[in-house]
Amino acid sequence: MKYKFEILKKSNKSKARVGKLYTPHGTINTPAFMPIGTQGTVKTMTPRDLDEIGAEIILSNTYHLLLRPGHELIREAGGLHKFMNWDKPILTDSGGFQVFSLAHMRKISDEGVEFTSHIDGAKHFLTPAKVLEIQTAFGSDIMMPLDECVPFPCDKKQATEALIRTTRWAKESNLKLQTSNFKTTSNNQIPTLFGIVQGSTYKDLRKRSAEEIAAQGFPGYAIGGLSVGEPQNEMFEMLDIVTGILPDDKPRHLMGVGYASDILGAIKLGADLFDCVIPTRLARHGSFLTYEGKTSIRLAKFEKDFTPIDPACDCYTCKNFTKAYIRHIFWAREITAMHLLTIHNLRFFMRMLAKVRNDLLNEEE
Amino acid sequence: MKYKFEILKKSNKSKARVGKLYTPHGTINTPAFMPIGTQGTVKTMTPRDLDEIGAEIILSNTYHLLLRPGHELIREAGGLHKFMNWDKPILTDSGGFQVFSLAHMRKISDEGVEFTSHIDGAKHFLTPAKVLEIQTAFGSDIMMPLDECVPFPCDKKQATEALIRTTRWAKESNLKLQTSNFKTTSNNQIPTLFGIVQGSTYKDLRKRSAEEIAAQGFPGYAIGGLSVGEPQNEMFEMLDIVTGILPDDKPRHLMGVGYASDILGAIKLGADLFDCVIPTRLARHGSFLTYEGKTSIRLAKFEKDFTPIDPACDCYTCKNFTKAYIRHIFWAREITAMHLLTIHNLRFFMRMLAKVRNDLLNEEE
Repeated sequence: MKYKFEILKKSNKSKARVGKLYTPHGTINTPAFMPIGTQGTVKTMTPRDLDEIGAEIILSNTYHLLLRPGHELIREAGGLHKFMNWDKPILTDSGGFQVFSLAHMRKISDEGVEFTSHIDGAKHFLTPAKVLEIQTAFGSDIMMPLDECVPFPCDKKQATEALIRTTRWAKESNLKLQTSNFKTTSNNQIPTLFGIVQGSTYKDLRKRSAEEIAAQGFPGYAIGGLSVGEPQNEMFEMLDIVTGILPDDKPRHLMGVGYASDILGAIKLGADLFDCVIPTRLARHGSFLTYEGKTSIRLAKFEKDFTPIDPACDCYTCKNFTKAYIRHIFWAREITAMHLLTIHNLRFFMRMLAKVRNDLLNEEE
Repeated sequence: MKYKFEILKKSNKSKARVGKLYTPHGTINTPAFMPIGTQGTVKTMTPRDLDEIGAEIILSNTYHLLLRPGHELIREAGGLHKFMNWDKPILTDSGGFQVFSLAHMRKISDEGVEFTSHIDGAKHFLTPAKVLEIQTAFGSDIMMPLDECVPFPCDKKQATEALIRTTRWAKESNLKLQTSNFKTTSNNQIPTLFGIVQGSTYKDLRKRSAEEIAAQGFPGYAIGGLSVGEPQNEMFEMLDIVTGILPDDKPRHLMGVGYASDILGAIKLGADLFDCVIPTRLARHGSFLTYEGKTSIRLAKFEKDFTPIDPACDCYTCKNFTKAYIRHIFWAREITAMHLLTIHNLRFFMRMLAKVRNDLLNEEE
């Protein structure tokens, strides 16, 4: 299947839209949430568990997979889909976010970024071309160009420099993709590369970045550098500016977002794709998600609570186990507790997004 | 279904037999291996995973469940089957083995054993009656009486005292069961209680214990105090003595055994039921089992080994993942690696036992 984005319906109350994103490994109903498979596995889950909770795409991290097991090993395995036995779409990030988080362990120049592996101290050098080569080895359905993500707060000078570099690297990446003979591992198509918008929390920088990236004509766009510590209203303000500039007929991925309320708000501002470690990480720390927010399963009040987390939920966990049981095995440090909570939390996000899509489709004209 | 043991065939080359053990929660084909669900979950597994690998019965530990979450909570939950969502047979031990391992934290008398919880320091007192009451609250299909398990090596005086106490407690337990109105949580039957044979590694003590316990007429027998450090040949020698005395028409559970070679040897000496943490524990430490023994998935030689652990194995792990992938996620400390190895190791034991049963059934008369 060739890459294509199709909008089925636009809301007339907000910028929200419902769509279908076609990729070589399958179709994604948008707005969509992507569970995160950082190291080539969604933590505590198997691919069939992901199928069951309704995941249509996962996100994997270039930085982590580059360091271990390495992209050449994944190429030899026949690509990331085959390596991890996941035959649905995979989006990979550029590794930029993780590298820039390394702070003292990385050195940036216009050519790229040098960094030291947190695992074995080995030196690595990421350039726009290298990042594409790595993701092509993975066989990602959607890949990201190297960008510079700044922390929050960030002074305007640094944010501007990062923006300029991000635009420059986007151009280099796009050119490299068109002039090289890159083909995805799994089929014979030119990989799909999104452009990334940066600009910190400065309105004029967000506007400038969105304009510069949109001008390059990508098949989809990512909005980076948000959900890094700024208040939600600032995040929404930046997103609103950016989605007002990006072409309407291309998908928009709000990277690293987020909590349910972030996602629901961002959909109304025109975002289509989301990824976040929240549902999986909270599960491992013993919290379950509902529309009321997060709740710790460890609480004493659940000791004899012989009801499921959510009686209305259709996940394996809610259909088969009580809060009292999950609480017991969580306190007993059983790995199965983390697994059961992960199933529920991811399914909760999937059902939340399905409801949003359904509500939008049924919105009166 | 009422408790019943049926022997389908006896080998004419050894003491091995193939049978069916009927219990209130289903039928077990013997010889059988019981995965261990210490705290009410088989580590890293869900009940459907256990169904898939072909488990027909699991063993749970009275000691652990008594301390957390407590047998009264499990009673309120409707019994252990319902609490953990496992509708097939459960055998529970008496807690004796764990309590006697506590060494300095327990005090023994003819009435029972007082011990201190390793979790919160609370004092507990286990008596033959108490141990039955706890297991009745669990609703176990097969339960064990309080016994005294001695360490290896053990001087003859101590071993004799433990034997005498084990016989006395067995009598008390049997009497209590017949005179009380105990009914399993899940149905209205008198629970099935096995007798336990002790005697350390002394031939005369094993003989005496087997005779004294057999004389009490239990519906099944457990052989305890083996696989505690003694050489395999000594274990086999003791087992041979005991199975020569125990009634032929009742099942025999060789407790806590073992490695594949232990199990295969013990079957030839007339043992029918086995339980051991080996397949699950080794999995969590990164080892997989084959007929060649245990092998660490971490080995460098598996780095680019894109073949399954065992191409002939029908488990989810072997049908879907390569050694290179499992090695990668194990080194990356992903919980999923432990889960995938547990599936394989338990399935390996299940297939091994199925082969034994099949070979015995097809043995020429």
